[in-house]
Amino acid sequence: MTEELKLKTEQLAELQKKLYAFNYASSSIYLDGATVAPRDTEEGRGEALGILSEYTYELATSKETIELLDYLKEHKDELTPHQAREVELLLRDNDYMKNIPQDEYVAYQKILSKADYVWHRAKEENDYESFKPVLKDIFDYNIRFAKYYKPDEEPYNTQLNMFERGLTMDQCDKFFATLREHIVPLIKKIGEVPQVDDSPLYGDFPIEKQKELTKYLMNYMGIDPHHCVCGETEHPFTLEFTKDDVRITTHYFENNVASSMYSVIHEGGHALYELGGADEHKYTVVAGGVSMGIHESQSRFFENIIGRSEAFTGAILPKFKEMFPEQFADITPRRFYEMINKAQPSLIRTEADELTYALHVMVRYEIEKKMFAGELTVDDIPAEWNKLYKEYLGVDVPNDREGCLQDSHWSGGSIGYFPSYAIGSAYGAQMLAKMREDVDVEAVCASGTLKPISDWLSERIYQYASMYDPKELFEKVCGAPFDPTYYTDYLEKKYSDIYNL
Amino acid sequence: MTEELKLKTEQLAELQKKLYAFNYASSSIYLDGATVAPRDTEEGRGEALGILSEYTYELATSKETIELLDYLKEHKDELTPHQAREVELLLRDNDYMKNIPQDEYVAYQKILSKADYVWHRAKEENDYESFKPVLKDIFDYNIRFAKYYKPDEEPYNTQLNMFERGLTMDQCDKFFATLREHIVPLIKKIGEVPQVDDSPLYGDFPIEKQKELTKYLMNYMGIDPHHCVCGETEHPFTLEFTKDDVRITTHYFENNVASSMYSVIHEGGHALYELGGADEHKYTVVAGGVSMGIHESQSRFFENIIGRSEAFTGAILPKFKEMFPEQFADITPRRFYEMINKAQPSLIRTEADELTYALHVMVRYEIEKKMFAGELTVDDIPAEWNKLYKEYLGVDVPNDREGCLQDSHWSGGSIGYFPSYAIGSAYGAQMLAKMREDVDVEAVCASGTLKPISDWLSERIYQYASMYDPKELFEKVCGAPFDPTYYTDYLEKKYSDIYNL
Repeated sequence: MTEELKLKTEQLAELQKKLYAFNYASSSIYLDGATVAPRDTEEGRGEALGILSEYTYELATSKETIELLDYLKEHKDELTPHQAREVELLLRDNDYMKNIPQDEYVAYQKILSKADYVWHRAKEENDYESFKPVLKDIFDYNIRFAKYYKPDEEPYNTQLNMFERGLTMDQCDKFFATLREHIVPLIKKIGEVPQVDDSPLYGDFPIEKQKELTKYLMNYMGIDPHHCVCGETEHPFTLEFTKDDVRITTHYFENNVASSMYSVIHEGGHALYELGGADEHKYTVVAGGVSMGIHESQSRFFENIIGRSEAFTGAILPKFKEMFPEQFADITPRRFYEMINKAQPSLIRTEADELTYALHVMVRYEIEKKMFAGELTVDDIPAEWNKLYKEYLGVDVPNDREGCLQDSHWSGGSIGYFPSYAIGSAYGAQMLAKMREDVDVEAVCASGTLKPISDWLSERIYQYASMYDPKELFEKVCGAPFDPTYYTDYLEKKYSDIYNL
Repeated sequence: MTEELKLKTEQLAELQKKLYAFNYASSSIYLDGATVAPRDTEEGRGEALGILSEYTYELATSKETIELLDYLKEHKDELTPHQAREVELLLRDNDYMKNIPQDEYVAYQKILSKADYVWHRAKEENDYESFKPVLKDIFDYNIRFAKYYKPDEEPYNTQLNMFERGLTMDQCDKFFATLREHIVPLIKKIGEVPQVDDSPLYGDFPIEKQKELTKYLMNYMGIDPHHCVCGETEHPFTLEFTKDDVRITTHYFENNVASSMYSVIHEGGHALYELGGADEHKYTVVAGGVSMGIHESQSRFFENIIGRSEAFTGAILPKFKEMFPEQFADITPRRFYEMINKAQPSLIRTEADELTYALHVMVRYEIEKKMFAGELTVDDIPAEWNKLYKEYLGVDVPNDREGCLQDSHWSGGSIGYFPSYAIGSAYGAQMLAKMREDVDVEAVCASGTLKPISDWLSERIYQYASMYDPKELFEKVCGAPFDPTYYTDYLEKKYSDIYNL
């Protein structure tokens, strides 16, 4: 390596450390705003985030950065594979950012910092109108940015790519059609047989006890409490500062024990992915999960494939009996498993069972697609939402709070994210089949710790962080291309058994 | 105003907004680290804080900043008084920072970000040795920085000035001598009469109930919960993001109800000062309290002069009887007042009664002074601490946890801060005398809200934030120079009454 190249690679490391620091700062401010900050404090937070984002923009798009990355790209054969990947990922960011005028970028960051707060209030007060102008801005900016980035591409394809590289509307349309083909008849059949009584899950579950359950579950999952803790927010999320510092959040409902429980397991799955990154990625852009599809494959793998399996629910039932004897003393393992997996069209995505879940995702996908195509405006969203819920799930949405205001994604600027949930779920089913070649999954679930499962995933997925693009990583793990029939088979088998179809 | 000057004042505003954003980010990261962050996460936090501090340093000391400030200083007659003050304060910072080599400044910031964690652990494990190297670095850097800044001044005088502009060792020595003259005989007399039984304050006080008490007290003080909330930390503190976003913290002890209660009132006093700043200071360096002496005058005014007054303790006793009937059902207002004010030499500064408190401060002052004079090294601190506690307070320090490891100040780099507590307490006594000319303090205490008191302070102190130096502000408020006999008279009168001396 020449002296010049050595200097440039040092500059590369420095650039990434700076990006890390600004990212850290913004995350910290965001986390505070979502958890403990007093209610009327968004102005000062927005000002700070706006200014910090100017620095991030400048770092990512400055002449020096572009020159540095171009130089390194030309010398990519002399770089380590890690450095080459750093350059590749930075150039991708750069390609996106450099086409956005700085004032628009900063204005958008300010809107985002306000949007979370506006959305919270709007949801609390079931007041879509108060959220509408902000939501319009967020959609408008995203559409505009997507067009700046790839003027010749359908902007929603560009948008999907930000969360799952390579994903297109075409693929989504086909994937969702396959799911619908299998899920809709299953739901119909389930509707015709006797229903599971899951009322014991809806009783009186003191928050303090639920917090104890959170600790129990995180421990069962093998999450190190010295590197990951759980907070409380309106909408659960995972946030990573480094591979040594990951935060998850949940929302406790006093009358519903399963809600927080499965939020914790879901976010815990995200957390394990982040906690499992190799040390070499630290303070570089390679740190962190590679795509939302892969991320959701991990979270939904733990939430559903493991967390809602007969082996796992059976293993944790004694803890439930100990903590909540009034509700669970007489519940058999089979009954507990059935309650946890009760399938039933409903209103709230995060509370949906594993079977109907993908239909909730499809509603959002259709709306985003139409918004990006200009076929819908923010004025139309509530009616469109309610229409699609009726059409896909057969339910009437009584208000926007339980309708189009339920999710935090749009207010966070995450448009194009939702399909990742469904695709991730399907990735997970194929990974399970592969995992079974090496791991006795049921025995692990019953063993008191899920560590052998996360070890398997760590070796094949976690440690690589963002070294490989999602498609490449998936195929490395599964030894085959993505095939959604693993998922539809899994669902058919599981629900036919539960409902004796 | 010329076009050029107009441009420069715009640059002045921009510079301050940037400093605000970096300060916001560091505060957010610090707050997270002190409250909810998992245990083993200091490395990533330190990296981020180190990089952010490079930017702060650069902003404060760059050639452009110096040229800008010099230009504006030359045109100070054409500036608004606010702008002139902004320039004055920025130049002071600049004078301090520009003499510190950037690498030393950044290295020091990294040490600080680690020190909080190291101190926490050391305190938990009563292990001074593990804290010693970090403490040595912190003292060494502070001494060096003070010498860089004012090579011809005694470095500890320079250090005192950072927390209370104008304060010198000479003044402190005289002030503390006066206090000792009055306090020591009082303590002796109190030791000779029957003691107050304050055992009802040490019972079983569930944390959840204490949290309710926190809300009650913050409400009583007139603190707006939409702009200020209370968290939990090892050592209570106040942190301000803006005048609209202030955080306080407390430490709950299940077996001691007064500890958190008076932390909340103390930090609440700091918070009121910050919350009361005028809007015009926002995002400028004039925002925030002017000195630690004035700040502590506000916190200790609420904690002691109001919070431990017979009028206030009498007013809140019914709430105690309602919340903790087992302990307080039979307690008379007079008895409650006496319990709250029990004077007794003790080990822990933050738990000390109002009378012996200043002696705790003097121990720290003497040690800092000797460390800065090179008469003491970090090896000597525990023995010196224990010797001085024996000498000043007559108590034997059983371990470093309850000795020289008890405070967070040194690990936070706040050397020279402690005298502010005693001076602030004395400021407060003189302010009380002035306040009585306008306000019936006892009637307000009994009225269910302290708002008339904070309104009086707001008009005279809070709104100005850092517009005036502490001495000027104090004399504006009191119409006379600082006179410590207000404080000694106040203490003699209060304790003679309580103990029938």
